[in-house]
Amino acid sequence: MIIGTDIGGTKINFACVQAEEVSGGVISLKTPDNIQGILDVFFEGIGNLACQNNIKAIGIATAGTVDLENSKVTGSTGNMPDGYDSLELKKILKEKFSIPVFVENDANAAAFAEFKTGNARGHMNTITLTLGTGIGGGIIVDGRLLRGRTGAGAEVGHMPITPQKKRKCTCGSWGCWEAYASGTGYAVTAREMAEKIPVEKREGILKEKKIPELTTYDIISGLNNNDPFAIEVHNMWEEYLSMGIASLINIFEPDSIVLSGGMAKFINYEVLNSKVKERVIMQATLLLPAKYENFAGLLGAAYLAGEKFNL
Amino acid sequence: MIIGTDIGGTKINFACVQAEEVSGGVISLKTPDNIQGILDVFFEGIGNLACQNNIKAIGIATAGTVDLENSKVTGSTGNMPDGYDSLELKKILKEKFSIPVFVENDANAAAFAEFKTGNARGHMNTITLTLGTGIGGGIIVDGRLLRGRTGAGAEVGHMPITPQKKRKCTCGSWGCWEAYASGTGYAVTAREMAEKIPVEKREGILKEKKIPELTTYDIISGLNNNDPFAIEVHNMWEEYLSMGIASLINIFEPDSIVLSGGMAKFINYEVLNSKVKERVIMQATLLLPAKYENFAGLLGAAYLAGEKFNL
Repeated sequence: MIIGTDIGGTKINFACVQAEEVSGGVISLKTPDNIQGILDVFFEGIGNLACQNNIKAIGIATAGTVDLENSKVTGSTGNMPDGYDSLELKKILKEKFSIPVFVENDANAAAFAEFKTGNARGHMNTITLTLGTGIGGGIIVDGRLLRGRTGAGAEVGHMPITPQKKRKCTCGSWGCWEAYASGTGYAVTAREMAEKIPVEKREGILKEKKIPELTTYDIISGLNNNDPFAIEVHNMWEEYLSMGIASLINIFEPDSIVLSGGMAKFINYEVLNSKVKERVIMQATLLLPAKYENFAGLLGAAYLAGEKFNL
Repeated sequence: MIIGTDIGGTKINFACVQAEEVSGGVISLKTPDNIQGILDVFFEGIGNLACQNNIKAIGIATAGTVDLENSKVTGSTGNMPDGYDSLELKKILKEKFSIPVFVENDANAAAFAEFKTGNARGHMNTITLTLGTGIGGGIIVDGRLLRGRTGAGAEVGHMPITPQKKRKCTCGSWGCWEAYASGTGYAVTAREMAEKIPVEKREGILKEKKIPELTTYDIISGLNNNDPFAIEVHNMWEEYLSMGIASLINIFEPDSIVLSGGMAKFINYEVLNSKVKERVIMQATLLLPAKYENFAGLLGAAYLAGEKFNL
């Protein structure tokens, strides 16, 4: 029995993992806004798991980057509290629980879960993308996680997909894939496209709402009503999405790319496949939905801990 | 002693490789326009090497894709003769020479040479780019070549860098990095930029030549004379170059990217570094010139054969 946990910006999830399954349900607690709070919640969550007295290791998936030794956080993201960018998770938890601890970036852990027991099972080369407010990725090359020089690799959201310095990315650069193909990018595209339509020609959802207030949700619901503008925006989004996916296929020639995250459920796979196939050299890579959504990270972290400590 | 060879569209090179060096010079023969001719030249070249009676293995770097078993060509490029796309190199050469044969794609072999004994020595994560009429790449992840599902990975030249369907790539797609940042792309950029300048404002090299006849060479020589138009074109090229390099850095977080090929010698590293740094999350990746140019492929193939057969 291994504990799998996932520390994100809004929630911390905990579960007991055994025989490649969550055993006894997932405990989900709100992420506190300070480091001590996060540790307290961590101890509380583990204390409430049914398997707490029978565990061999703890696997932690976390937002931010993790060192090559899989022991501590080395870089944070905007939605984590101050001080999280150097949190010695392994050291702190080992002292408290006296069992082995393994830490991995959440997108990497999620990719590992899809590879081990999810929809990319048996695919020795596979990438899992998380399409949400940003775009994250975890990459498996020949059955192993690609981590890079310090563990900060797989930042696939930050491939530039246009030379235009028009959309600034959260990373400080311009024209990143994430700025176009994430949920945030989706709404920006909608507003940009709407601005180009003369007022007298604005119909459907464009009559109902002011342009600066258009959201991704508006377009998706318009799409469900066959709104022509929504269809156009969605098509553009799938075009942007296909660009980064094609880059990854041309670079990695993977067996599959798994699409997870809030935006993934809006993908029309037939359309996306045809757009991607126009852009790739090798045609056999499968585009697949994720098997796991919210619990991919904790499962993957538990699997990785199991492999690391031969459990 | 291992024979290293490199089969390209214009030349086939041969050398004896020992103790991480070419021993006794390189034999270079013209590539024939048919398969039988290539094999004949191959036998001739090996027959003329001083080490021919004292070799343990043959390593072959070749244009095109190579199967996962490193035994045969599985896909060709436009400049190789018909039938090259399924050439059973290992089988044919093993029958002739009765020694182990190892086949690898030329860009992969070149990257391996730079990694083993070249300017990326000791860099466990490194990429070697070949900037010529196209853009090729070989990628080392944790000390091993990234090959993909069938051996056709590392096609880094075909990352889309613009959503505009304006420049068609040799691969059939649009907007590939190679269509902008290769030598061919360089000249296209020059002509496109020149067309936008009104006739009466065309100066320097733009007065000397008709736009459709502008070549990469013209711009480079203009650059050496501080021609303002040439400077502008070159700056745009380095911008395009920085986009693909930034994608690779964000994805692989490598120790280094080695720049080889005919176009690499025109890079201003200070300018390129500053453009790349604007676009990447992690700043430590080194941009380096290649140690080997023409002989990287045959050296890498010999090293790979040595590793494979424990020589």
